Amino acid sequence: LTSKLPGWGTTIFSVMSALAAEHRSVNLGQGFPDFPMNQELIAKVNEAMYNGFNQYAPMQGYLPLRETLAEKVKFLYGTDVDPDSQITITPGGTYGIYTSLTTVLQPGDEVIIFEPAYDSYVPNVLVNGAVPVMIDLQFPGYKINWEEVRAKITPRTRMIMINTPHNPTGAVLSENDIKELRKTVEGTDIFILSDEVYEHLIYDNIPHQSILRYPDLLERSFVSFSFGKLYHCTGWKLGYCISSPALMAEFRKVHQYNCFSCHSPSQVALAGFLRDRDSYLQLGNFLQAKRDHFQELMAQTRFTPMPSHGSYFQCYQYHRISDESDHAFAVRLTKEFGVTPVPVSAFYQNGKDHKVLRFCFAKKDETLEKAAELLLKV
Amino acid sequence: LTSKLPGWGTTIFSVMSALAAEHRSVNLGQGFPDFPMNQELIAKVNEAMYNGFNQYAPMQGYLPLRETLAEKVKFLYGTDVDPDSQITITPGGTYGIYTSLTTVLQPGDEVIIFEPAYDSYVPNVLVNGAVPVMIDLQFPGYKINWEEVRAKITPRTRMIMINTPHNPTGAVLSENDIKELRKTVEGTDIFILSDEVYEHLIYDNIPHQSILRYPDLLERSFVSFSFGKLYHCTGWKLGYCISSPALMAEFRKVHQYNCFSCHSPSQVALAGFLRDRDSYLQLGNFLQAKRDHFQELMAQTRFTPMPSHGSYFQCYQYHRISDESDHAFAVRLTKEFGVTPVPVSAFYQNGKDHKVLRFCFAKKDETLEKAAELLLKV
Ligand SMILES: CSCCC(=O)C(=O)O
Ligand SMILES: CSCCC(=O)C(=O)O
Repeated sequence: LTSKLPGWGTTIFSVMSALAAEHRSVNLGQGFPDFPMNQELIAKVNEAMYNGFNQYAPMQGYLPLRETLAEKVKFLYGTDVDPDSQITITPGGTYGIYTSLTTVLQPGDEVIIFEPAYDSYVPNVLVNGAVPVMIDLQFPGYKINWEEVRAKITPRTRMIMINTPHNPTGAVLSENDIKELRKTVEGTDIFILSDEVYEHLIYDNIPHQSILRYPDLLERSFVSFSFGKLYHCTGWKLGYCISSPALMAEFRKVHQYNCFSCHSPSQVALAGFLRDRDSYLQLGNFLQAKRDHFQELMAQTRFTPMPSHGSYFQCYQYHRISDESDHAFAVRLTKEFGVTPVPVSAFYQNGKDHKVLRFCFAKKDETLEKAAELLLKV
Repeated sequence: LTSKLPGWGTTIFSVMSALAAEHRSVNLGQGFPDFPMNQELIAKVNEAMYNGFNQYAPMQGYLPLRETLAEKVKFLYGTDVDPDSQITITPGGTYGIYTSLTTVLQPGDEVIIFEPAYDSYVPNVLVNGAVPVMIDLQFPGYKINWEEVRAKITPRTRMIMINTPHNPTGAVLSENDIKELRKTVEGTDIFILSDEVYEHLIYDNIPHQSILRYPDLLERSFVSFSFGKLYHCTGWKLGYCISSPALMAEFRKVHQYNCFSCHSPSQVALAGFLRDRDSYLQLGNFLQAKRDHFQELMAQTRFTPMPSHGSYFQCYQYHRISDESDHAFAVRLTKEFGVTPVPVSAFYQNGKDHKVLRFCFAKKDETLEKAAELLLKV
């Protein structure tokens, strides 16, 4: 067997979660909440199962759910998207990204990816025989240098991947970034893949720069979303992808022979639950308070916070504490101090190590307090 | 955008289900039951959600579920499979097939596929830039001509796909087929992909020829299973794939960046539910009775049954009734007579039309009776 991904091991998230379980440490690594999800949404799934919604949903997703999503998009971003031709329910945001890339990429195509990057992007490109073209976000601050992007464009550039709010750094794109993005792709046939799984996890009153705000850009974009991140049920593996009708038609050709369709009772439940706008509008405040609480607690430790304006995550520098590689330090924090972060070098192909650790603050206050207390000893 | 699947439209299952919905016909097309699933299993999922199993399951699947599956394999086929390295939970049987093919195939590789074939096989091969090599099952009877298979092997042959019980025909492989398969691949590096989603839907006391019975073949095989087909919940989109440790390691590299992991509450529920062996050992009798009931009812119509020894399906010939293409006839049966089958030509790349329709008999008795009553008028 010629490996499709020679040299690729287990994802850092599984590695760190397994390590955390082994050492019974406080797991602030893999991005998932440890507080209970909404019990009413659970009740709705249960109701859907009892009501017999246990057979195949339509390939593109349960229509009332797609309709509710279209209303949400209109309400939030003022853009009309057609539930029939532009929205497909996916088994999670990661799958939406994989399927978008598989839809578009031919062997030899180049894809621009900013680092640090969520760890599925590069292997998704490689599995399709395409070539990842890596660009470092500026350090610190994690901003995009758009001149550098334009300098890296070649006739083989097929796609640019963006991610806002950004995993692992919590950086968010600005309106100016979108202008620069438009300037970069205008007049080319470059596609955009926008990972917006943290859409509603954005803080400090910053507006989310969704591609959905910009119909001209949406024409050439796939935008991937996650219900797991939205409603604190990452294990439900449900999300959706929005695109132009032409691109979505091709996406669905791949999707209908990949997973075909998604968990039907959850779709029925979400179609109702999503109508309550507070269910997503309150999310930013809720998690911003967690970020702030954790940052205050961490102020008493020797870790130095880096700004996070979104996502489940905040990065902390430790260059004043240790010279170790971030991976070695993350392992040692787990084993000796009982707290598990994720080393940010794992998000770089070249293993770049700025001595930064990513902490997930989407946790119960008591979990964050316990973690900070343990980190005080470092 | 260069389409990965130029000329491919919507799958026949979606087309026929949409047509059935539009005309409010009795839908014996797409393969899903219309009777309620087990209510105890629903209660277990509900319990898992309330107990907080709503975050990411491990990438390879919830360990107690994999352990229970390994016990089931040992009990049924006498083979030891290691839950850690050989079993991965997937979001459905179709996804297991897609991911297996994506794991193995390089551009230009050839894959032997028997027709009629489940409609995802060929596009899965094409999306990977590989070449489907089609071989007709003998008509009637739908047996494999192994001499023909051996004649079609080339140095580029990378994989042979088998499917027992077979969709759409209900044919099953015999022990002799397995011998021929072994003879065909021995001394080559050809892989096997065995679609066994209808594992327990096998009738007439015929033993299921699972690849899992044959450790020497399992070394080079991926075997895809479906909980949806097993427990009448096709909309849950959950299944599993079993392989050798070496192949499974590569499968997981693709899987961890495709969907990553699967619906966790269902996995927790199934880990418990599966321990009750009757939950799957009774299934064959239950569905055999449905096949027989439908066949008796159909004996009064002008349709001629073809043997089905497994799956949700039985094929019927109509050459004594009409000259129409099977697709046109399936549409007319929907519109004029109120019953929707699937035309078997849709399972052939070359559109071969033997004037055969596939009917799904995994339905309530009253549904089957209603359908037969309507078909009596044809
Ligand atoms: C798919 S596991 C990773 C979850 C996550 O988004 C993260 O930890 O970055
Ligand atoms: C994935 S939809 C098809 C369901 C099925 O197995 C069939 O109808 O053949």
